[in-house]
Amino acid sequence: MAITLYDLAGAEADRRFSPFCWRTKMALAHKGLPVETVPWRFTEKDKLPQPNAGRVPVIVDDGRVVHDSTAIADYLEERYPDRPPLFGGDGARGLARFVQNWTETVLHLGLIRLVLVDIHGRLGPADQAYFREDREKRFNTTLEEVVQDREARLPAFRASLDPLRRTVERQQFVSGEAPAYADYVVFGGFQWARAVSDFEVLAEGDPVRAWRSRMLDLFDGLARRSPAYGD
Amino acid sequence: MAITLYDLAGAEADRRFSPFCWRTKMALAHKGLPVETVPWRFTEKDKLPQPNAGRVPVIVDDGRVVHDSTAIADYLEERYPDRPPLFGGDGARGLARFVQNWTETVLHLGLIRLVLVDIHGRLGPADQAYFREDREKRFNTTLEEVVQDREARLPAFRASLDPLRRTVERQQFVSGEAPAYADYVVFGGFQWARAVSDFEVLAEGDPVRAWRSRMLDLFDGLARRSPAYGD
Repeated sequence: MAITLYDLAGAEADRRFSPFCWRTKMALAHKGLPVETVPWRFTEKDKLPQPNAGRVPVIVDDGRVVHDSTAIADYLEERYPDRPPLFGGDGARGLARFVQNWTETVLHLGLIRLVLVDIHGRLGPADQAYFREDREKRFNTTLEEVVQDREARLPAFRASLDPLRRTVERQQFVSGEAPAYADYVVFGGFQWARAVSDFEVLAEGDPVRAWRSRMLDLFDGLARRSPAYGD
Repeated sequence: MAITLYDLAGAEADRRFSPFCWRTKMALAHKGLPVETVPWRFTEKDKLPQPNAGRVPVIVDDGRVVHDSTAIADYLEERYPDRPPLFGGDGARGLARFVQNWTETVLHLGLIRLVLVDIHGRLGPADQAYFREDREKRFNTTLEEVVQDREARLPAFRASLDPLRRTVERQQFVSGEAPAYADYVVFGGFQWARAVSDFEVLAEGDPVRAWRSRMLDLFDGLARRSPAYGD
C-alpha cells in the first residue's frame, strides 16, 4: 500500500513548494517507496490526520502517522532497513544534521529574503491572507519590504553558498559520489525557490547550479517534472 | 615505528598552533598511532622531507612522505583499515568534506580576523618578519588593521557558528554520538585560536564551548595539555 504524504500546494494543486516536503519526497523516492501525495494548503489545518500538528510534511504509512521531515527520515530508515540507506551509518547521520542546520540557518534564511513575496503570489486567496498576516508578524514588516533590493543582496547570498559550492565542485553530491539525505535537505531549499519564483538565485556556470541540475535529474526527473521556473 | 609529523611551532617549541596540523594530530590519536612531532617554523622550509611542498602538516610513515591534512587523513584511513575508522563510510567522508569546506570558508576566515595579530605575537623574530610580510600582502593591509574592532565583530562571528551550535547542542559531536574526522577539522580552528590568543572567541554557556571542552578532553587531554590560553 502506498504511503500517503500531505504536501503543501499553491493555488494550483500540483505546485508543490515546501522545502521540508521536498526532503520527504526525495527520501521516499530514494527508498523506492510508492507514495500518494495529497495537496494541502496552509488554511486546511483540519484536513490533516490525527494526531494533528497543523504542519506538513505528514506521512501515513499503514496507519502510522509520522510528522516532521527529520522524524520521517529517521522513521523510513528504521522501518525500511532493506531499502537503500538514506544516511549510511551513524557518522553520516550525525554529519547530515550539520548540513541540515547549515541549510536552515544559512540557505533558507537567505532564500526567504529573495522569494518571500513570490510564495505569496503562488497561493490562493485564503492562503494569501493567512500567509501575509503570519509572515508579516514574523518579520515585523511587509512581505515586499523583506525582498526589497534583492538584486543588490544576490552577491552576498551567493557568497554564503561557498561551503556547498566548494563541496559540489569537487564531488558529484554533498554526500559524496552518490546522493543521500543531506543532498535532499539542501536541494529542498532550491526546489522551494524555483517552485515559486522566476528570480534565478544561482549564476550560470555556478557549480551549485550544475549540482542542482543533477538533483533535478534524479528519480526520472521527479523534481524537474513538478511545476517550477527556470532550469 | 612511530610516524613523524612536522608540526608548526611558535617561538616556544611546544606551542603548536596550525589548525591543519591539529587535524592530523587528532586523526593520528583517533587511529591510536604513535607519533613523534618535529617542531617546524615558517622559515625552515629546507628542513622538510623530500618531496618538499614547503608546508605542514607532512608525515613520514615508514619512509612514505604524505603532505596535506586531507591527503593524510585519506592515507591513514586506507593504510590502517583495522584501526578505528576516521570517517565511517563513503557517505560520511563526503559529508565531512562539506564540514571541512564550511570550516575553511566560514570558521577560519572569521577566526583569522580575530587573532591574526596574536599569531604574530607568538612567533620568533625570523618568523615574525616572514609572517608580517606574507600576510600583509595577502590581506593588503597591516596585521593590526585586520583585527581592528574585533570586539565589535564578535557577535557576527558568533552568529556565523549557528550551524555548528545547533548541531552540538543536539548531539555530542559534529559526527554524532562519537567524534570523528569532521570534529577534528572544526576543532583545529578553535585550537589554533586558543593556542595563540587570550581573546576568547566563544561566550560562556555557548554549546560550542561545551563541545570544544569535550574535544579538549579527548585522548587523555591531548589538546588541553598543549600550551594555549583559556579553557
